[in-house]
Amino acid sequence: MALIVQKYGGSSVASLDHIRRVAMGIVTTKSKGNKVTVVVSAMSGETDKLLGLAGQVMSNPPGREQDALVSTGEQACAALMAITLESLGHRAKSYLGLQLPLITDQVHTKARIVELQSDILHDDMNDGIIPVIAGFQGVCDNGSITTLGRGGSDTTAVALAASLKADCCEIYTDVDGVYTADPNICPKARHLKKISYQEMLELAGLGAKVLHARSVELAQKYQVPLVVKSSFGGEKHTWIVNEEDVMENSVIKGVTLERNVSKISLIRVPDRPGIAYKILSPLAETSINVDMIIQNASTDGFADFTFTIPTTDLEKAQELVSKIAEEIGALEMLAENNIVKVSAVGIGIKTNPGVAARMFKSLSEENINIEMISTSEYRISCIIEEKYGELAVRAVHKVFGLDDLNHTKDGEHKHE
Amino acid sequence: MALIVQKYGGSSVASLDHIRRVAMGIVTTKSKGNKVTVVVSAMSGETDKLLGLAGQVMSNPPGREQDALVSTGEQACAALMAITLESLGHRAKSYLGLQLPLITDQVHTKARIVELQSDILHDDMNDGIIPVIAGFQGVCDNGSITTLGRGGSDTTAVALAASLKADCCEIYTDVDGVYTADPNICPKARHLKKISYQEMLELAGLGAKVLHARSVELAQKYQVPLVVKSSFGGEKHTWIVNEEDVMENSVIKGVTLERNVSKISLIRVPDRPGIAYKILSPLAETSINVDMIIQNASTDGFADFTFTIPTTDLEKAQELVSKIAEEIGALEMLAENNIVKVSAVGIGIKTNPGVAARMFKSLSEENINIEMISTSEYRISCIIEEKYGELAVRAVHKVFGLDDLNHTKDGEHKHE
Repeated sequence: MALIVQKYGGSSVASLDHIRRVAMGIVTTKSKGNKVTVVVSAMSGETDKLLGLAGQVMSNPPGREQDALVSTGEQACAALMAITLESLGHRAKSYLGLQLPLITDQVHTKARIVELQSDILHDDMNDGIIPVIAGFQGVCDNGSITTLGRGGSDTTAVALAASLKADCCEIYTDVDGVYTADPNICPKARHLKKISYQEMLELAGLGAKVLHARSVELAQKYQVPLVVKSSFGGEKHTWIVNEEDVMENSVIKGVTLERNVSKISLIRVPDRPGIAYKILSPLAETSINVDMIIQNASTDGFADFTFTIPTTDLEKAQELVSKIAEEIGALEMLAENNIVKVSAVGIGIKTNPGVAARMFKSLSEENINIEMISTSEYRISCIIEEKYGELAVRAVHKVFGLDDLNHTKDGEHKHE
Repeated sequence: MALIVQKYGGSSVASLDHIRRVAMGIVTTKSKGNKVTVVVSAMSGETDKLLGLAGQVMSNPPGREQDALVSTGEQACAALMAITLESLGHRAKSYLGLQLPLITDQVHTKARIVELQSDILHDDMNDGIIPVIAGFQGVCDNGSITTLGRGGSDTTAVALAASLKADCCEIYTDVDGVYTADPNICPKARHLKKISYQEMLELAGLGAKVLHARSVELAQKYQVPLVVKSSFGGEKHTWIVNEEDVMENSVIKGVTLERNVSKISLIRVPDRPGIAYKILSPLAETSINVDMIIQNASTDGFADFTFTIPTTDLEKAQELVSKIAEEIGALEMLAENNIVKVSAVGIGIKTNPGVAARMFKSLSEENINIEMISTSEYRISCIIEEKYGELAVRAVHKVFGLDDLNHTKDGEHKHE
């Protein structure tokens, strides 16, 4: 008998039929003597529909109201899941973030969890009730509804697993785990049975949509055993575990393509101390994540200053930065969003100095120009033109020996 | 300068365009120096859509979960209204029932308000913020979301007006006030400029869908000046006021047709003391409103026992009553839902003994058979076959001299 937190993503609960299929799985798990707490996302398409409505009204809706609006998607799905479990003869209760409560900071649309009360869920499970929690949402200390950002339901699930001291947290999604690259882009991508928290964190942060980055961070911090499974069945799955528990230590574990990247450049900025802080601090204050930063060598007392941000924050960032550009006397501000970020991720990077050079060589062999570079212990990332993105993923995937040799010409995988 | 609570029904907020039009009206009211608190229903069709989803899963979903599901409709609409007000340059904040809080009893799907905290709304209005409250919903003392029943947003609005000590409560709907009958059924129906709380209460309870009955009750109790207006503009409106303030005291003020009526009969019930209690108390416990009750004269120690309930509760009621029928040894249980209730409402009834007779005569002249009758100080009601419902309304409307004499043959009203 174990205590299991199961999280079902939007594609797993896309329709009432999907919800019923998922509910039967939950009932099976419970009937084996386990205690189960369920976390659900909104039915697929619902969040985009709601954001679309808000976007029709105004381009930058206030975060507080946007959160109140989109959080209804998860709420409705949690209630429908509870009703479906009841229809199968099991007692179930839905909960909003507000009801637990799951308390976050006040950063609307991308809040972070501060505290989570889960005592009531223990009581429910002891009474044979299956709690169904609306993922993605919380409440901040002034009582407003907040949301945790795209994919935030994963984080809800892991936080609950940590708080409930669950034996494991199962993330059910539309793929059967983590691959060395997105199989839609790279048909020779291989399935991974295990990956370290740190590697997964880099992959998630880079747009591999299997898990929300924050959820991996939390899972590592609280040592929550985390597994990604397909909600459509099948034996394959990927465990996310500690570094020392990953057996297969290839240098590079995966290659990602991040499309939500834009670049802002300030041309001929007076090269004075404190300029970078002056440009970037208003972005930090509004919780816009600046990723890569380049300031080119000053020649005549002026420098060009370039940085990347998520395209979803481009409009707000341009607004803020254009004011600063004027204040500091920059010649002009340029914005570009036809770029992508290709990254190679793996524990081996820190101990294999030649890795970056191999990646750059593979890109140059395809005549792909690298606009910006950044590296970390576990990652090498290159900003390139958008049109070369998929080609670059395949080239890097191949150069690190990740291609699946069982992959046949007609695009099918042999059975393992 | 006044403090005004404005409530907008589903048809007033049916689309983003509707919401924008309504928002401009709110802004106009505020710009005249008034303080405004807004209450919204779900966008029209949304509540039915959500109930339909729940109904596809199971026929009698648990009330707690049904409430959690349908309350998302108002929540989404309140957030969209707040965003729209912001897009017009005004600060606005949406609130769920849970957030105020609006505390109710635990009777899911038709809860009653127990307590309402509105201090935060005073603070908002003093700061120039327009609060937008999701109508229809509250929270009970165990933290579960409750709803106030169909039309419950009216009650939210009046309760807020009472709590805020508002100068008036404006109910915006798709009609321009209260008529002597539904103009769709009775083309000669007349518009009423004023009607008493008591008369309105009877009309509302009888399915005249202009106002939620509970809202009128609250308005009378707390003496909230209440006015019904069309959200599509126009000068016409109806004030709901104290009896002594209604000038035009015709005997009958309105005729209604209630379609949500079903009848359950228990045949050959042993005629013992306590039988009625035994039959009806389980219904009361599950908050099913029994309306009319007839027990026919006992002949041989057995009697037939008939009562009416809302058709929406028929299934649940049949389930409960069939068990009791067996217990008390009734011969059989019959259920019928092809009936309607036609009612005449007016202050004059209690002081004019001949009124009931005139109503019965007008029905008999149309060869309409009366199955059940009930009367109160302000109301006479007859249960008749469904197919005669609309004809009966026109006949009763005419016999009490309510027909609009300005009404021309082509169905148009002359301008007043």
